[in-house]
Amino acid sequence: MAVYTEVTDDALDAFLEQYDVGRPLSCKGIAEGVENSNYLVTTETGPLILTLYERRVQPGDLPFFLGLMDHLAGRGIPCPTPIRGRDGRSLRDLAGRPAALIEFLPGMWPRRITPHHCDRLGTALARLHEAGLDFTMTRPNSLGPADWRPLFERCADHADDVHPGLAAELDAALADLEAGFPKDLPTGVIHADLFPDNVFFLRDEISGLIDFYFACTDVLAYDLAVCLNAWCFETRGEFNVTKAKRLLDGYRAARPLDAAEMAALPVLAQGAAMRFLLTRLYDWVNTPEGALVKPKDPLEYLHKLRFLRGVDGPAALGLA
Amino acid sequence: MAVYTEVTDDALDAFLEQYDVGRPLSCKGIAEGVENSNYLVTTETGPLILTLYERRVQPGDLPFFLGLMDHLAGRGIPCPTPIRGRDGRSLRDLAGRPAALIEFLPGMWPRRITPHHCDRLGTALARLHEAGLDFTMTRPNSLGPADWRPLFERCADHADDVHPGLAAELDAALADLEAGFPKDLPTGVIHADLFPDNVFFLRDEISGLIDFYFACTDVLAYDLAVCLNAWCFETRGEFNVTKAKRLLDGYRAARPLDAAEMAALPVLAQGAAMRFLLTRLYDWVNTPEGALVKPKDPLEYLHKLRFLRGVDGPAALGLA
Repeated sequence: MAVYTEVTDDALDAFLEQYDVGRPLSCKGIAEGVENSNYLVTTETGPLILTLYERRVQPGDLPFFLGLMDHLAGRGIPCPTPIRGRDGRSLRDLAGRPAALIEFLPGMWPRRITPHHCDRLGTALARLHEAGLDFTMTRPNSLGPADWRPLFERCADHADDVHPGLAAELDAALADLEAGFPKDLPTGVIHADLFPDNVFFLRDEISGLIDFYFACTDVLAYDLAVCLNAWCFETRGEFNVTKAKRLLDGYRAARPLDAAEMAALPVLAQGAAMRFLLTRLYDWVNTPEGALVKPKDPLEYLHKLRFLRGVDGPAALGLA
Repeated sequence: MAVYTEVTDDALDAFLEQYDVGRPLSCKGIAEGVENSNYLVTTETGPLILTLYERRVQPGDLPFFLGLMDHLAGRGIPCPTPIRGRDGRSLRDLAGRPAALIEFLPGMWPRRITPHHCDRLGTALARLHEAGLDFTMTRPNSLGPADWRPLFERCADHADDVHPGLAAELDAALADLEAGFPKDLPTGVIHADLFPDNVFFLRDEISGLIDFYFACTDVLAYDLAVCLNAWCFETRGEFNVTKAKRLLDGYRAARPLDAAEMAALPVLAQGAAMRFLLTRLYDWVNTPEGALVKPKDPLEYLHKLRFLRGVDGPAALGLA
């Protein structure tokens, strides 16, 4: 649920006049993405997505995000192409925000994840990684291992209010990650946030990968670890090894993983769990009462982190 | 902003299979209407609106609302036609709620109201009234004059917290309305909530009248009074007589008003201001902290009520 910035009909008309997309027929705020304002705009030429970038997105990062989508779409990855105006630019201002008009992709994100979804996701992720190899821009991961402890310290005082003993538990898990997080794994462009609501399916195939606003240059296998956490745990917390195996097999069908990447998957997944646990914890303790967007439960990721810290190798995750 | 009930992809597939609309290509929650959950669904045959009726709508009223939309659309009023399933029904269950699939109407509601908008609105409202005359179902106005005092009494204790002296001021205004509210004016089907966000324009013409979920059988000129309040006051509270005159002239171009209706307009507008003031006040004092939908400011309508109580005839509103 996320429409923060209202766009007037006059402002929309003036904005769209800078593109060859025809005149607007409708404009509806949609509940998609939690960081930005998104509108589904239909024009005489068809549907489009209009995104206004809100305060969480650094304007300086937008050329990377839009350039990456353009690059990947050009290589056949089903991600939305930013539309260029007659001036050649895909980024301009609307209602006081940076804004872009983006291709509308059909499909729906899966509410009930099946092993088949995980297989298709794995292959799509590997193809995204391969297609990103010759993308020339880079962006450091602003939520990478070096950022976790500072983020923890900004909410540590309130952690025990969320769950008794949480501060000490996170402190210990962070120390372990700082000592044992893998270095020297293959890097490239990663999506870094490929949760189910960012993956559209049409019938049984992937029709869209969206929301590239955490994309960055980082360890490729870390992206797979993010997906293991987001796609392979059941609602009640059980880890589904069938889904994990299908995700991994789907990935390896398009990009092989070397021995070091395979061995690192459990600790990469611990790191990914820490990253989402910390950002959810931060949002949880910093969201004012009455906020429009309800923060996500950080404890979901505490349970995942605990499970992953008890795992002694990829085989325990069904990954071999 | 209003998506309260989540629809899964499986449930949507099963729901749409009961219609001849093709298979779903996308489904996005939209910020439209504050009472129900609305999705913009695109299928192989085009865009549609899927509405799930939430707790504020009485299920027993839905045949009236959907039947009315069907009736009016059949007479050329630009309101959305409910789509019938293969079983002939336009109302069924989805995700535990009554739900209907409704025609998608193009257009955007005007954020900046011009006198021209008021003129087109007036004519559309009069045509709606004329087209409703042979609609055979009836529904009492559940927010009519007889309902105002009971509604007031349910929030009177908190009124002075919202504005000092508000309880006494409303009590006096209600007594005046109870003594002087007109009877025996022409009645018929009214929309009863035709605010700007329920009226779509495409270019300079009305392309859609939506949200018939307060529609009822009541005094026709009261509907015009609701529009006077909602369309003819400026943001800072000034009454714009040019807009009022255009609204009235637009209305009379399609349906004449008799002398009693003309004379009653100021007190009907007071009544309409009272109705929206009371429901907003009720929502204001009853909305829990942290609610997803922010209640509308009741004081906007207090200022309108005060202005209208100082008016001594239609001429003072520019209406003659």
